[in-house]
Amino acid sequence: MLLQGKKGVWIKMPIELVNLVEPAVKEGFYCHHAESRYLMLVHWLPSTPNTLPANASHRVGVSAFVMNEKNEVLVVQEKDGKLQGTGLWKFPTGVVDEGEDICDAAVREIKEETGIDSEFVEILAFRQSHKSFFEKSDLFFVCMLQPLSFDIRPQEAEIEAAQWMPFEEYTAQPFVQEHEFQRYIADVCLAKKDEGYSGFSPVPMVSDFSLPKSYLYLNQQDLDI
Amino acid sequence: MLLQGKKGVWIKMPIELVNLVEPAVKEGFYCHHAESRYLMLVHWLPSTPNTLPANASHRVGVSAFVMNEKNEVLVVQEKDGKLQGTGLWKFPTGVVDEGEDICDAAVREIKEETGIDSEFVEILAFRQSHKSFFEKSDLFFVCMLQPLSFDIRPQEAEIEAAQWMPFEEYTAQPFVQEHEFQRYIADVCLAKKDEGYSGFSPVPMVSDFSLPKSYLYLNQQDLDI
Repeated sequence: MLLQGKKGVWIKMPIELVNLVEPAVKEGFYCHHAESRYLMLVHWLPSTPNTLPANASHRVGVSAFVMNEKNEVLVVQEKDGKLQGTGLWKFPTGVVDEGEDICDAAVREIKEETGIDSEFVEILAFRQSHKSFFEKSDLFFVCMLQPLSFDIRPQEAEIEAAQWMPFEEYTAQPFVQEHEFQRYIADVCLAKKDEGYSGFSPVPMVSDFSLPKSYLYLNQQDLDI
Repeated sequence: MLLQGKKGVWIKMPIELVNLVEPAVKEGFYCHHAESRYLMLVHWLPSTPNTLPANASHRVGVSAFVMNEKNEVLVVQEKDGKLQGTGLWKFPTGVVDEGEDICDAAVREIKEETGIDSEFVEILAFRQSHKSFFEKSDLFFVCMLQPLSFDIRPQEAEIEAAQWMPFEEYTAQPFVQEHEFQRYIADVCLAKKDEGYSGFSPVPMVSDFSLPKSYLYLNQQDLDI
C-alpha cells in the first residue's frame, strides 16, 4: 500500500489474495487496473475531485512500410487473424510491448516476422479507433523503415509467407483498393516514395517528469533541426 | 462469459462477486484488465501461442496551442499538480476520455478549462513516455486549434487563472527555456505560426474493423488531398 499525496490510497493485490478484495470494496475501494497477476485497488479520500491518474485506455500498434531500391515493398501473409486465407499481402504489423518505444517496436516486428534488419525513418500517419476490444481504444501507427538487409526468413509461428513485392502490385490488390484506410496509406506511401511527403520522426530527449529517455515525434524536415 | 474463436474464455466479474476470482484462478484463469466496477478474467485453452488482444498499455493526453490574431497564446495556471504555485503559464492540457477522439478531446479541454470555443487544426508533435504511472505509458499529443471565441472564463475547480499572453512572453519563461521538451514545442509552434510547418490533421473515415467512424491523422498538406 502506498499513499499518494495523502489523498489516494492504493492497494496492489496479488491474484492469490483476491479474497481480500471484498472487504476492501466494503471500505470504499474500487478497481483501478489489473495485469495478469495482480489487481490494483484505489480509494480516493477527500471530497475534492478525484485527481488520480486515469487508467490506460489505448493499445498501440504499428504497421511497417519497408521498400528496397527496386521499389519493392516487404509484405507478409499471416497464419492467423481476420485476413487468414484471403491471399492478401500486407505490411508487417504488431503490437507495441509494455514500455516499448513505437520506433523500436516497428524495427522489432519486422525482424521477428521477416528476419529483415531495418532502421526507423518516420511515422507517416496514424489512426485512432475505438472499442477495438471491450471498451478500449487503439492507436495504429504506419511507420516507414529503411531496410538494412534483404534476405527474408519468415517467422514460422505467425507468418505463412513473406516476400519483396513490386509496390504497384501491392496497391493493385482488391483489398487495398476497396478499403478507404488502405487506399489512404497507399497514397501516403506513394507520396513518400516520390519524396514529396514528410512524416514525424523521433527525437530522443530527456523528459521533464518521466524516465531519462523519451522520444518526441515531429516533422523535422519543416522544423529544419 | 463469452467464447472468442473457442480458444480463449473470458469472465467479466463484477466487483461485488470478486469472491469468485479465487476458484477461477485455480482453474487457470488470470487477470486481463479491470475497470472501476469489474475485473476481466481470461483463460487461454490451446497449447498454441496466446493470441488474445493485449491489455491497454497507454494513457493518451493532449496539450493545446491556441493563438489569436494578435499572436497571443491561450495559457493557464493550474490549481493542482506538480507546477502548482510556480507561477508558470502553460498550454491547457488534459486526458483523452474513454472512446474519445484526440481532436475532440483537445476542443473539449479548452472549452472546459477556459470557456474558449475552438476548431481543431493539427497535431504538431507527440511524445511517448514510459512508466508514467505504475508500468503504463503515455502518449501526449501537442495540438493546434483555431479559436472561435475570445472571452476567457476559467474553470473554478482546476484552473487558478487563464489569459491570452504574447507568444514571446510565453516562450521567455524560464521553465520553457530550461526544459528540452518545452523548447522543442515552442520551436514547433513558432514554425507553425510562421506557416513553415505542417503537422498531422484528422481525416474522418470508415474503418475496416472497428466502429463506423474513425480518424486517420496525416500530413494533408504534403499529400495534397
